[in-house]
Amino acid sequence: MRIELVSIGDELLIGQTVNTNASWMGAEFSLRGGNVVYTTVIQDTEKAIIDAVNYAFSRVDVIILTGGLGPTKDDITKYTLCKYFNTELEINTDVLEHVKSFFTARGRGMLEVNTQQAALPKAASILKNEVGTASGMWFERDGKVLISLPGVPYEMKHLMNRWVFDRLADQFSMTAIYHQTLQIQGLGESFLAERIKDIEDEIRASDISLAYLPSPGQLRLRITSEANRENEQKIEQFMAQIENRLPRYVYGRAKDRLNEVVGKLLLDKKATVGTIESCTGGALASEIVAVPGSSAYFEGSFVTYSYDLKSSLAGVKMEDIQKFGAVSEEVVIQMALGGQKTLGVDYCLAASGIAGPGGGTLEKPVGTVWIAIATPNKVIAQKFLFGEHRERNIRKTVLTALNLLRCELLEIR
Amino acid sequence: MRIELVSIGDELLIGQTVNTNASWMGAEFSLRGGNVVYTTVIQDTEKAIIDAVNYAFSRVDVIILTGGLGPTKDDITKYTLCKYFNTELEINTDVLEHVKSFFTARGRGMLEVNTQQAALPKAASILKNEVGTASGMWFERDGKVLISLPGVPYEMKHLMNRWVFDRLADQFSMTAIYHQTLQIQGLGESFLAERIKDIEDEIRASDISLAYLPSPGQLRLRITSEANRENEQKIEQFMAQIENRLPRYVYGRAKDRLNEVVGKLLLDKKATVGTIESCTGGALASEIVAVPGSSAYFEGSFVTYSYDLKSSLAGVKMEDIQKFGAVSEEVVIQMALGGQKTLGVDYCLAASGIAGPGGGTLEKPVGTVWIAIATPNKVIAQKFLFGEHRERNIRKTVLTALNLLRCELLEIR
Repeated sequence: MRIELVSIGDELLIGQTVNTNASWMGAEFSLRGGNVVYTTVIQDTEKAIIDAVNYAFSRVDVIILTGGLGPTKDDITKYTLCKYFNTELEINTDVLEHVKSFFTARGRGMLEVNTQQAALPKAASILKNEVGTASGMWFERDGKVLISLPGVPYEMKHLMNRWVFDRLADQFSMTAIYHQTLQIQGLGESFLAERIKDIEDEIRASDISLAYLPSPGQLRLRITSEANRENEQKIEQFMAQIENRLPRYVYGRAKDRLNEVVGKLLLDKKATVGTIESCTGGALASEIVAVPGSSAYFEGSFVTYSYDLKSSLAGVKMEDIQKFGAVSEEVVIQMALGGQKTLGVDYCLAASGIAGPGGGTLEKPVGTVWIAIATPNKVIAQKFLFGEHRERNIRKTVLTALNLLRCELLEIR
Repeated sequence: MRIELVSIGDELLIGQTVNTNASWMGAEFSLRGGNVVYTTVIQDTEKAIIDAVNYAFSRVDVIILTGGLGPTKDDITKYTLCKYFNTELEINTDVLEHVKSFFTARGRGMLEVNTQQAALPKAASILKNEVGTASGMWFERDGKVLISLPGVPYEMKHLMNRWVFDRLADQFSMTAIYHQTLQIQGLGESFLAERIKDIEDEIRASDISLAYLPSPGQLRLRITSEANRENEQKIEQFMAQIENRLPRYVYGRAKDRLNEVVGKLLLDKKATVGTIESCTGGALASEIVAVPGSSAYFEGSFVTYSYDLKSSLAGVKMEDIQKFGAVSEEVVIQMALGGQKTLGVDYCLAASGIAGPGGGTLEKPVGTVWIAIATPNKVIAQKFLFGEHRERNIRKTVLTALNLLRCELLEIR
């Protein structure tokens, strides 16, 4: 099954919106054995849509259009597809009921434009949208399929999961690719390559491919092959080899997120955590809290941005702030211990650094960050030198601190 | 000037990485009058790269390749372009010095693979990468241009800003499109459309286009036309009309971010701010702190996730938590007032809600959020009903709270 994703919208072409829909669908199809061979972005004009659909029908089996189904006047996909498939709109009473109840549940009145969301092409089979008001539409022509979905990511995902994947799997055969990913924190691309050189040579000698995918503060290592039992076993062996060699750095696989990994460890230990943050400004706490159910182990946090609050709330001695500076081993250790006590937690993470762009000195340049962790039986601190970019420094601090916590929970030395 | 962006990397096709490079370049070119007519994503094989370059040379003036320039074995762009342009690699001594000093500055040793970053094609003119170790390359053929850049976003952006835009502007003529964007918080797509129906009709009657771009908790309204003085004046008038009609909701233009807008207002008033957070878990504080220089007005924050900390730190009466629940007007008001006092700030934002997916009840379903703001002379609280999705509920709460603060600072009623 060859698939083309066609995203409609000037906002994508001029970069006001990032095409996350294409990447989500690419990921899902790759796991399910669908083959996305092309992704295009087009303008939201009738001509652009019709040209793109014609061209795509000439080279793939399945076209998935996203975008242009909203209630406002700039949304023309539905009208254009009526023309293309030579059909007309009719009110779908099921959908109309759903749209009405959708507004009622949110305590909002319904507008005339919202009623129009229930007018749908006769020739299409309708994919009911339970999380929004724009229905999906499934057209067929000469054994090929065109699916039109709303561009709002969670509505598109809902429709794909609820209807599209299953119907496509019924209608087409899929040949699968197998891939596995290791999630790595605290080791840069070339340093990882050096540490696993022998394993990498073996992987490549087995006709299996390997890719390094860096992003700020973390790195994914992806191993890919055609899906068959032999390859899957080999890949599993390579993964285990790398995990065993680098336990401080490899924190998970595929879609594991570091905050979820840490959350599970805390749950297992029935331990609680809190944070005392300076340069990260709450980003570390919010990363922990982003996990559903985190209230079982996360107690709370202080963001002590000012010297006064570092002293009054985190219990850091003002004379030490003045003597060593707020970004220092002495201060970050006192923050971690003070937070552990005041928040009443088993583990307390503390971070103090110079995120930038201002505030750097020769001795402590922008990117200097001290991270400490107080555990039930000790406190340790480490210094890092990240870089010049504020947002990335904050992100790297968050991930580094979480990985420190992970290593402490697992007693990895 | 017609441009094709070609992104290299399986990680994009299978959706492990989102193509933010294409959207950033699309945005920049659209402002500068370059016309991105096509964006494609291809695999990182020699054949795929050569086919894509051949095809792109047949239909555009400028090709910008991104990706495949890293130090590891999966990066083959440089070698493939040597074949394509029939040239060979030679060590560039300037680049070699730069790569060495890059590692020295970070206190890390240099590996042999990093030396290879200085081996570059003779036929290319080299675009020096001051923020990384992979150089950009500029090739020419028959008056057309191919530029190869690293896929790491901030390195690509650095090279575009430092070299590429200027050189392209020297070599090609650009016809500009004019667009302006309003940033809106707190008003949904169809409700905004209803409120500005008359203005929208006038805009469309003037052959100017208008697009609604929703994302969780905010909405952008983009107005676009060909660039000429008449259109620019008309668009400016329409923008001002909408801003005057909806001051509670329109918080800025184009790239204005709500946290920056609020930050400027706080600086102007010489006022300070803090937050007391429950469901947002520090996300509100970290959004405020994401602005460089925020230490001038942001003092600190508590994340009081547990009942105990709400009581001991934020000074909420435990009997009120038990009587009204943690997600209630009474509690969120006490949080805001308690935080204002303990943090010693002029303005204190408080949020308590049920982010989900668990924890909802019939009376207080998932998505119920109370937000309060304590100002120098009063405290107000408002209830919101956001939705079912944890991450979006947190994001909506953050933006809604910031907009409440903006309205208070501007005394918009």
